[in-house]
Amino acid sequence: MALWFDEAASAHHQLRWKVRRCLYSVRSAYQDIQVIDTEQFGPSLVLDGIMQTTAGDEFIYHEMLAHVALVTHPAPERVLIVGGGDGGTAREVLRCPTVRAATMVEIDPAVVEAARRFLPAHTAALDDPRLEVRFEDGAAFLSRHDAEYDVILVDATDPEGDGPGKVLYTPEFHAAVRQALRPRGLYIQHTGAPFYNPEVVRDVSADVASRFPLARLFSATIPTYPGGYFTFIVGSLGPDPLQPENPWTPTGTRWYTPAVHRAAFVLPPYIADLLPASMVVG
Amino acid sequence: MALWFDEAASAHHQLRWKVRRCLYSVRSAYQDIQVIDTEQFGPSLVLDGIMQTTAGDEFIYHEMLAHVALVTHPAPERVLIVGGGDGGTAREVLRCPTVRAATMVEIDPAVVEAARRFLPAHTAALDDPRLEVRFEDGAAFLSRHDAEYDVILVDATDPEGDGPGKVLYTPEFHAAVRQALRPRGLYIQHTGAPFYNPEVVRDVSADVASRFPLARLFSATIPTYPGGYFTFIVGSLGPDPLQPENPWTPTGTRWYTPAVHRAAFVLPPYIADLLPASMVVG
Repeated sequence: MALWFDEAASAHHQLRWKVRRCLYSVRSAYQDIQVIDTEQFGPSLVLDGIMQTTAGDEFIYHEMLAHVALVTHPAPERVLIVGGGDGGTAREVLRCPTVRAATMVEIDPAVVEAARRFLPAHTAALDDPRLEVRFEDGAAFLSRHDAEYDVILVDATDPEGDGPGKVLYTPEFHAAVRQALRPRGLYIQHTGAPFYNPEVVRDVSADVASRFPLARLFSATIPTYPGGYFTFIVGSLGPDPLQPENPWTPTGTRWYTPAVHRAAFVLPPYIADLLPASMVVG
Repeated sequence: MALWFDEAASAHHQLRWKVRRCLYSVRSAYQDIQVIDTEQFGPSLVLDGIMQTTAGDEFIYHEMLAHVALVTHPAPERVLIVGGGDGGTAREVLRCPTVRAATMVEIDPAVVEAARRFLPAHTAALDDPRLEVRFEDGAAFLSRHDAEYDVILVDATDPEGDGPGKVLYTPEFHAAVRQALRPRGLYIQHTGAPFYNPEVVRDVSADVASRFPLARLFSATIPTYPGGYFTFIVGSLGPDPLQPENPWTPTGTRWYTPAVHRAAFVLPPYIADLLPASMVVG
């Protein structure tokens, strides 16, 4: 049987992945969850029809989301992950030796269950005693926390559509993130593929830049996301990712290095033009 | 009519582009030539079923291929383009004021004809008096030239398949390129999308590194090429692209800047692992 998974990058562009087998399919309280075994990248998690993470290329997204923040902060102790139910972000966070307590707030227990069954490399650190996994709404959780986290990583679905990730791209949510950070804390969140959704980079950057003393955008090239070029916003109350303060850097990574970290903040004019003036470097 | 162009990145992955109209279709002496008007990126040239260049994103490939070389060389005067029939590389080369004579050797006149009709922004500089356009086999042309060019840019189809680009990825061709360079000359050629064809990066890098005093790899993210992550090899008889020697840099570019140039040479371990030890930086 010739089975293909098609994803719409836009109304005009699709990515197609040859599927060996559908491993899992469930409609949770929040979203449609599928795990498919792709020929190209192995087991892959699909939420509401959008490819989220694959065994084959997940290292890029998770290393860049976690380590840019952890290496920028001088000594992150308390880390909050909003979303991240597949476990990959938690796994990278827990590699950092100064991290004493990490909390992962995932709205959908069915995502964690699917990942535990079918993405064992992603979930390898989910039982680390430093990690607390909570199943609740990330925005509601954040609203009860004040000045508690050194690093907050928002690892959620895209803001397009009506999935549970939508609320995590609002000004109210970014205000709550800022409120929950310790004095020199910073936060990171992906802002999507600018060739196809430039408005996400533009709108989120404008909001975060107006709300945090320091905001920066960086990129990583991720083959399972449309166009490859994928962006992340940093909102910081102090440390500048262009001048990392942590003496620690991770070893054994396949994408992140200190040099890759620096290079990731160099933006072509085509991308920089989406940003408010305060965010344009050089 | 719902018309889609499908391109196979591998046996397991396809890119699909919604097509407004097929503008042109011809079988030349060398290849199958199509121009399709894509909803996402406008008029797009397809050779033997592979997307080559689109109006919407061509600036990335052409700026990076041309300017990395032109800015690295202290004062490029004579430039050879092997292939490049769509005209985009010549357009960028001719922006450099020290360039006194550029030669474009394209095997297939039908490609230039198609580009002149349907890709006017690509071909805007094809009538520049400093440019000579020749229709002949690039490898045969090169074998008659010795120490003549400051910069050689190989702008051809992929080495996979049996298209006319195949011969441009052989050790014999790289030897001829080296022979045709002036004493401090350098050459650049794309080495494809390493997520899908890592063997091209590996094999070409090994050959070029064994043949040139200096070899380096850089990347650019190009949304119409599979996975976005796209690589280029530099073989140099002298100037190091990490220390550009030309006081000139282009202005008004949308992707290339001096900072993007430097960042493009920073390779993640996943990519660097494909290279011979002599090419690994830092």
